[in-house]
Amino acid sequence: MTQHNAPINPARRRFLLGTTQAAVAGALLGGGLGMLNSPRAMAATPPPLDLVPFDGAHQAGILTPQQKHSYFAAFDLDTDKRADVIALLKRWTAAARRLSRGQTALPLSGKADAAPEDGGDSIGLSTSKLTLTFGFGPGLFSKNGVDRYGLASRRPEAFVDLPKFNGDQLVPERSGGDLSVQACADDPQVAFHAVRQLAALAQGVASLRWAQPGFASAPADGSTGRNLMGFKDGTNNPSTKDPALMKEFVWVGDEGGWMKNGSYVVVRRIRIALEHWDRSELGFQQEVVGRYKDNGAPLGQKDEFETMKLDATDADGNPVIPDSAHSRVASPQENGGARILRRAYSFNDGANFVAERWPPWHQGIEYDAGLFFIAYQRDPRSGFIRINKTVAARDMMNQYTTHVASAIFACPPGTDGKGYIGEPLFAGL
Amino acid sequence: MTQHNAPINPARRRFLLGTTQAAVAGALLGGGLGMLNSPRAMAATPPPLDLVPFDGAHQAGILTPQQKHSYFAAFDLDTDKRADVIALLKRWTAAARRLSRGQTALPLSGKADAAPEDGGDSIGLSTSKLTLTFGFGPGLFSKNGVDRYGLASRRPEAFVDLPKFNGDQLVPERSGGDLSVQACADDPQVAFHAVRQLAALAQGVASLRWAQPGFASAPADGSTGRNLMGFKDGTNNPSTKDPALMKEFVWVGDEGGWMKNGSYVVVRRIRIALEHWDRSELGFQQEVVGRYKDNGAPLGQKDEFETMKLDATDADGNPVIPDSAHSRVASPQENGGARILRRAYSFNDGANFVAERWPPWHQGIEYDAGLFFIAYQRDPRSGFIRINKTVAARDMMNQYTTHVASAIFACPPGTDGKGYIGEPLFAGL
Repeated sequence: MTQHNAPINPARRRFLLGTTQAAVAGALLGGGLGMLNSPRAMAATPPPLDLVPFDGAHQAGILTPQQKHSYFAAFDLDTDKRADVIALLKRWTAAARRLSRGQTALPLSGKADAAPEDGGDSIGLSTSKLTLTFGFGPGLFSKNGVDRYGLASRRPEAFVDLPKFNGDQLVPERSGGDLSVQACADDPQVAFHAVRQLAALAQGVASLRWAQPGFASAPADGSTGRNLMGFKDGTNNPSTKDPALMKEFVWVGDEGGWMKNGSYVVVRRIRIALEHWDRSELGFQQEVVGRYKDNGAPLGQKDEFETMKLDATDADGNPVIPDSAHSRVASPQENGGARILRRAYSFNDGANFVAERWPPWHQGIEYDAGLFFIAYQRDPRSGFIRINKTVAARDMMNQYTTHVASAIFACPPGTDGKGYIGEPLFAGL
Repeated sequence: MTQHNAPINPARRRFLLGTTQAAVAGALLGGGLGMLNSPRAMAATPPPLDLVPFDGAHQAGILTPQQKHSYFAAFDLDTDKRADVIALLKRWTAAARRLSRGQTALPLSGKADAAPEDGGDSIGLSTSKLTLTFGFGPGLFSKNGVDRYGLASRRPEAFVDLPKFNGDQLVPERSGGDLSVQACADDPQVAFHAVRQLAALAQGVASLRWAQPGFASAPADGSTGRNLMGFKDGTNNPSTKDPALMKEFVWVGDEGGWMKNGSYVVVRRIRIALEHWDRSELGFQQEVVGRYKDNGAPLGQKDEFETMKLDATDADGNPVIPDSAHSRVASPQENGGARILRRAYSFNDGANFVAERWPPWHQGIEYDAGLFFIAYQRDPRSGFIRINKTVAARDMMNQYTTHVASAIFACPPGTDGKGYIGEPLFAGL
């Protein structure tokens, strides 16, 4: 897909190399700036508070408290060789470990006659709690019926393709992928920088398929943030501080073989007809959500974190929380106890006047904005698929939302500081 | 262009209204949360450090130290009546004044059977130094040869249309506009929220034409930030702390009539072939920019802020800073002393595999990212146009960059706390 000829250098001159090296030597002697061309680059920069450890039993970026920005990228594998995939995962792991520490993706050589080993655009910035979370798409196990890497038999039973849901209007070019990288950081340039370095390291083996930047703004007091619809979002998320809940709903257990301690991620680009939402009556907005806009309490109740009283009825016998309210149809109570860990970001890609969907209130759509839904779960069949079947069929909010892209990835367990991401998948092959 | 029918409310019930009002009354009595439905909403929230005053001799958002996020939107006027335009500018001014104070766009009525007067998605967030800067496009003065508002004779002489520059590949749908709003804030949701409220207030009079989110990441120590090419960007910008420079190069003087104390803004969406840039040799990157990547010093010199020695030659008699280096061709020295105030943001709209331009190194372009160039100036003829003619013709960086959208707006002077944006333009009509 790509052609890798750099523009021809019309006037490469010796003095440049010399001057650069002299400048570097001077800076090393004098301390000062973290030098791009020095192997010591940024060694002293990042304060520990800005770091999230890369290694651990589980990958970072799943239970990690949500950072302010995200850049989620999917890649297609262009190789037929398993060894190429393993080598790529090793390069990615090493680079991700370095980037998570605030270092450049690769050690720098300082050579003026070579491409820099790191683009340099995050130099001087805080590491910003960067996390990099890797996933494997269905295409790693087989693609168009071909088992490219001898991994088809290792595809976990739980790692199913997502069915077509009611209302889906998926754009294939923005969906799927053989590999995924979720970069999250408190700075958008740091997240993008990390993925760019990983993409460069994939040259010739995997190429970018799609990418989605996102953001999540939350009050400084730690209270629940609001999404672009103006409602608090995430109130009913299972607590990441509860290991029993995480074990039950997020982490793959013994049933998963090499996926043990990993998790499955589903992502959905959900465009929202924000112009029409903004023109809808407050009372109706609250019926759609099933909660009050001001404080996030379930309708008919007082506090945000009260358990929803889904059986409550009004004087006329109608449910206080409507049958098709979003928070009802997505609730564990209506889905056989199913829960997923949502880690969504808003997206905002400017204006786009083409609506993906017909209903009249999708005419006149302007903002290409909405929710980049990200959810982790132990088993997609009893997680997202179970819940979204109900949501897609019944949720009043579907009048405003359209799922325009979709993907599912198996995120393997974490690393111990030495191994590489996905090593258990390839063990013994 | 838009259809304003909100979805039909299938089950609007009296209890909801009652419950909401009760909740609001309770909260008002008890204090607590800044209530969406209360006229007191957010009154106590914003600490003064997060506010930039809206009113002043000049509009905010021009000399204001650059915030971390931007959302720049252009609107088309859909009305034929001057009174509609004036009324819109009054509504926008009042809303912008409130939003800049951390208030909702309009006072809230709390009515459940009406659309909320504010979308609510910035409630609980810091005001984040929000600034809103308004501009007038050529179409306000005449469009397709029609003087819709009787303003053609008031179009300032300096407010010329931009010529076609060498290499321009402009997408009309992303260019131009009759009105502009530049929203900048340290939080992306706050910037977007503000423009959404203004767009809602324009309903029936003006509609969104295009919008571009952006971000600017800078080191915490106040040193110059790096753009997506990894180089320090903005080193040679005229200092906003120097009133004489601002008077000479940024603010319109007596020559401008109603534009006095205003400024002209040029915006350009500049897509960068980042994949190819990343693969280019460090020495060549430095020749393209004319500066060292590590510390930003001009080639052959030591410190970032040294004046470029454009006459310096090496032992072979070649210029140390190449003839076609970006920092040379954009410099005042090469452009008859021309200077503009750059206030650019990076943009990152994910992936897009369609290159706007032919040269071979534009094949395989992946990132839909680059620089959303924003520059303010006293006179575009001796400012951006003067400089960009040189840049478009000679800059080596053009091998990597493509201007894919363009617009120019006349940003009128500021307001005194009572008037409305653009009032001097309409005075006496």
